[in-house]
Amino acid sequence: MVYVGVDVGATYIRIGLIREDGSVINKVKIRQPVSGDENTVANVIIKSIKELTNGIHIDGIGIGSIGPLDLSKGIVPWAPNAPIKRFKLVEPIIREFKVTVILGNDAMAAVWGEYLFGIGKGINNLVYITFSTGIGAGVIVDGHLLVGKDGNAHEVGHIVIDINSRIQCGCGGYGHWEGLGSGANIPRVINEFIKNKSYKSRIYEKLVRGEHVSTEEIFQAYYDGDELARDFIDNYLMRVHAVGLANVMNAYDPELIVLGGSMALNNVDLFRIGIEKYLREYVAVKPARIDFTKFGDDIGIIGAAALAIKVPESLRMYVRHYEEFLS
Amino acid sequence: MVYVGVDVGATYIRIGLIREDGSVINKVKIRQPVSGDENTVANVIIKSIKELTNGIHIDGIGIGSIGPLDLSKGIVPWAPNAPIKRFKLVEPIIREFKVTVILGNDAMAAVWGEYLFGIGKGINNLVYITFSTGIGAGVIVDGHLLVGKDGNAHEVGHIVIDINSRIQCGCGGYGHWEGLGSGANIPRVINEFIKNKSYKSRIYEKLVRGEHVSTEEIFQAYYDGDELARDFIDNYLMRVHAVGLANVMNAYDPELIVLGGSMALNNVDLFRIGIEKYLREYVAVKPARIDFTKFGDDIGIIGAAALAIKVPESLRMYVRHYEEFLS
Repeated sequence: MVYVGVDVGATYIRIGLIREDGSVINKVKIRQPVSGDENTVANVIIKSIKELTNGIHIDGIGIGSIGPLDLSKGIVPWAPNAPIKRFKLVEPIIREFKVTVILGNDAMAAVWGEYLFGIGKGINNLVYITFSTGIGAGVIVDGHLLVGKDGNAHEVGHIVIDINSRIQCGCGGYGHWEGLGSGANIPRVINEFIKNKSYKSRIYEKLVRGEHVSTEEIFQAYYDGDELARDFIDNYLMRVHAVGLANVMNAYDPELIVLGGSMALNNVDLFRIGIEKYLREYVAVKPARIDFTKFGDDIGIIGAAALAIKVPESLRMYVRHYEEFLS
Repeated sequence: MVYVGVDVGATYIRIGLIREDGSVINKVKIRQPVSGDENTVANVIIKSIKELTNGIHIDGIGIGSIGPLDLSKGIVPWAPNAPIKRFKLVEPIIREFKVTVILGNDAMAAVWGEYLFGIGKGINNLVYITFSTGIGAGVIVDGHLLVGKDGNAHEVGHIVIDINSRIQCGCGGYGHWEGLGSGANIPRVINEFIKNKSYKSRIYEKLVRGEHVSTEEIFQAYYDGDELARDFIDNYLMRVHAVGLANVMNAYDPELIVLGGSMALNNVDLFRIGIEKYLREYVAVKPARIDFTKFGDDIGIIGAAALAIKVPESLRMYVRHYEEFLS
């Protein structure tokens, strides 16, 4: 049996041909189209799947996408971070390939991939968290993949961790974990952090001159020993992430939390030590183990395929719905 | 069919005789024994059940208890707020009555009671929150009652909402929702709140004199127009609770949140208006409806009986375990 996993990100779309055991046969990475109509994204995906499969029979297609999603319509109604804001996914792809297509949120797909094939294999209380542009999570409690009334029962990136903060998240909310600690927001947050402070630091000099400093640059400066980068990451950002992870433990009581996303995977030791340092000040339940995905960037396509390989109980109602497109 | 619901609180134990439709036939409220061994609590419960049932056949017993619980052993291993810290529940009761006994956390029981018989009837994404000495929650996502690795997949009272706070919760954690907003903690929090401030207020005068002010007293003063009580509740406490509820929405994406507990039920309009005022600054998903339990104090016994009337899928493994006590 061969499945297709489609990982729809804000900048890239990754497509993989995946075996039933989760191993990757072949894969391709393409750019999100920067303009077009609501069919453009699906058309680009269809073309790439055809090239990748080259006529071989496929048994199902799983899609893990940035959101928010409208699961019952199988579309992305309004993606804040993607160039084309609204696009169809399920209907055009199902019409083309005439196989079961299942759509889920990208982090939902990732946790399902870890549950079936990764370091979370068979662990019934499992959370996957991606540290990237945003902070996203997929959650399994008691072997059940959480969906919620609109498919958002895992938006822990939007848990308020600082009631007094006036820093706004991309979603508009104040003091959110993502708003204070994700890749897209760190450059703004560090500008707040330096207020009334002074550092012997290249990063600090740039900020004071009003220049933009990227998140990657701050992490690089950290390893170069930059005084501001050290203070910000060791004493602020790692506390932010420890609080976020403590909240995840208190909300879902997982046995294991798998971390992914470039920010975590490029800074594994830093994350391990930083989170360990602060976590116990905040967690009320028996702490979960924390580990890092072994799949790197492939977790997106493996997780997406996993949704099709073994459909989660809680998404089954949406699969039935998709089949109606064929009549 | 007749069931017994046992609501084990820190101060009181409530026991009810409940019909299959959730209606209360008869009930009794007794004090937690203040001293004894690990069998004392169960013996008190057994005696009261016998008096209440008066020899009629019962079809099952459900227990909703303060925690933390050890579900697999059917005991409370260490209750921070109860006079007897460690006590058995399931084994002595099952040996006496020889019927199925099912144990759950008290808020878990409450959400199940609302789901089967209350204003949350049939709502598959449902949260119950009690505002009382502590802040407890029971959570149903996709029709599934969340349990978690140790039965704590709902400890939202321990979500950190103020990363900078040095106020400790009863559990030891810093900046927790419960630590900043529950009945047991408000008297400490208001002492922090008045620092570097001054009020024309009876409550303020008492605090400055170093006298203890109870949570009930602060709410009473609020309705009397006390300046400090007004500022604290309108501008701080309601924001704390709005943030807590926004976090619940972002974590579980419920359709309805049912509020209970004396603090909420005695101040329904205040809670409605206060939460409405701040919620939208923090919530990222489509907001849930918020309403108040119609069962008042009886939610404890109704919820506990509900666990036995229709055993939640996720607790079934513990029921099987209990039956082994009989062999």
